[in-house]
Amino acid sequence: MDIERFEKQMNFIREIDKEKMIKRQSYITDGVTHEDDSQHAWHMAIMTLLLKEYSNTEIDVLKTVSMLLIHDLVEVYAGDTYAYDEEGKKTQAEREAKAADKLYGLLPEDQGEYLKSLWLEFEEQKTPEAKFARTMDCFQPLILNDASDGKAWKDHDVKKSWVMKRNQNTSKGSEEIWEYAKENLIEKNVKKGNIIDD
Amino acid sequence: MDIERFEKQMNFIREIDKEKMIKRQSYITDGVTHEDDSQHAWHMAIMTLLLKEYSNTEIDVLKTVSMLLIHDLVEVYAGDTYAYDEEGKKTQAEREAKAADKLYGLLPEDQGEYLKSLWLEFEEQKTPEAKFARTMDCFQPLILNDASDGKAWKDHDVKKSWVMKRNQNTSKGSEEIWEYAKENLIEKNVKKGNIIDD
Repeated sequence: MDIERFEKQMNFIREIDKEKMIKRQSYITDGVTHEDDSQHAWHMAIMTLLLKEYSNTEIDVLKTVSMLLIHDLVEVYAGDTYAYDEEGKKTQAEREAKAADKLYGLLPEDQGEYLKSLWLEFEEQKTPEAKFARTMDCFQPLILNDASDGKAWKDHDVKKSWVMKRNQNTSKGSEEIWEYAKENLIEKNVKKGNIIDD
Repeated sequence: MDIERFEKQMNFIREIDKEKMIKRQSYITDGVTHEDDSQHAWHMAIMTLLLKEYSNTEIDVLKTVSMLLIHDLVEVYAGDTYAYDEEGKKTQAEREAKAADKLYGLLPEDQGEYLKSLWLEFEEQKTPEAKFARTMDCFQPLILNDASDGKAWKDHDVKKSWVMKRNQNTSKGSEEIWEYAKENLIEKNVKKGNIIDD
């Protein structure tokens, strides 16, 4: 064992534990507890194992799962930016790029570069894996919001146009999942008044 | 899309959300918050991506990551059994087998059987993937316990003999990780008095 290499890996492993403290706006299905980033990533990784058959294009499953597991790690330093926080989104890219350099710089160079490239691939949204990962990243909070009777939507007076804009690329990973989500998660909650019909 | 199949997948995805409510004895690195099962699984999945080079035998990484993501799902119905809860461990296998039938029965048959077989493979500890996954499952709480200055060990007056017994198979997935853990996580905390030297 190259102990210097191993200690770098250990430092990274300890540092990313902080992702468990980054709370999201979504509630888990108990309708009380805010989800954290690590729980969100775990859920989507399992969803990918189960729902990969609905991807528009065949995906490398390990790559997609790895991407989802790590895609929010920059929030350890940059914080979570809520999907409908227009002010926060203005500085998000810059904050996250700085965070990525700092965080992935902890790792041995080969591993730091690989994980950073996976994160950038997710951000750039060009590959089938990135597109499917984004589909999961939009679909999973819809499931939780629906299961908690729209609590996070109601907390923030979320409008249908916001949800539709947020989901403008959900179909790019999976047309089938988007068709289902639109009808069974979004329209259903518009009808219930959980999402404001504008 | 076969909607009946998809609804089964959705039911499972909603049900496993409960794993986020299953608290473990370990504290995350803030030393205050108990870790939950989904956070633990997420952490180990990333650890596997980074530490696979130390496996005694080459492993199928996607299989190992999948196994770790799902290996505690039975606790949604069976509850968490603490590593040093000797009474709880007597009924653990029976409780978990029943839970597996109920939980994996929610999925389409092909997927339910696959995930259940992955869980059984982990339990049986015969394959390189199962052995490496077990190594992660023992090593990860050692990291958290060390990082939180032994809080969970001190809560339960944990003795060195218990930790060594709990880790009797840690070397079977990775001799190198076990050598590191023994010296830098266990012995170090025995010297600090965080683990009782019996």
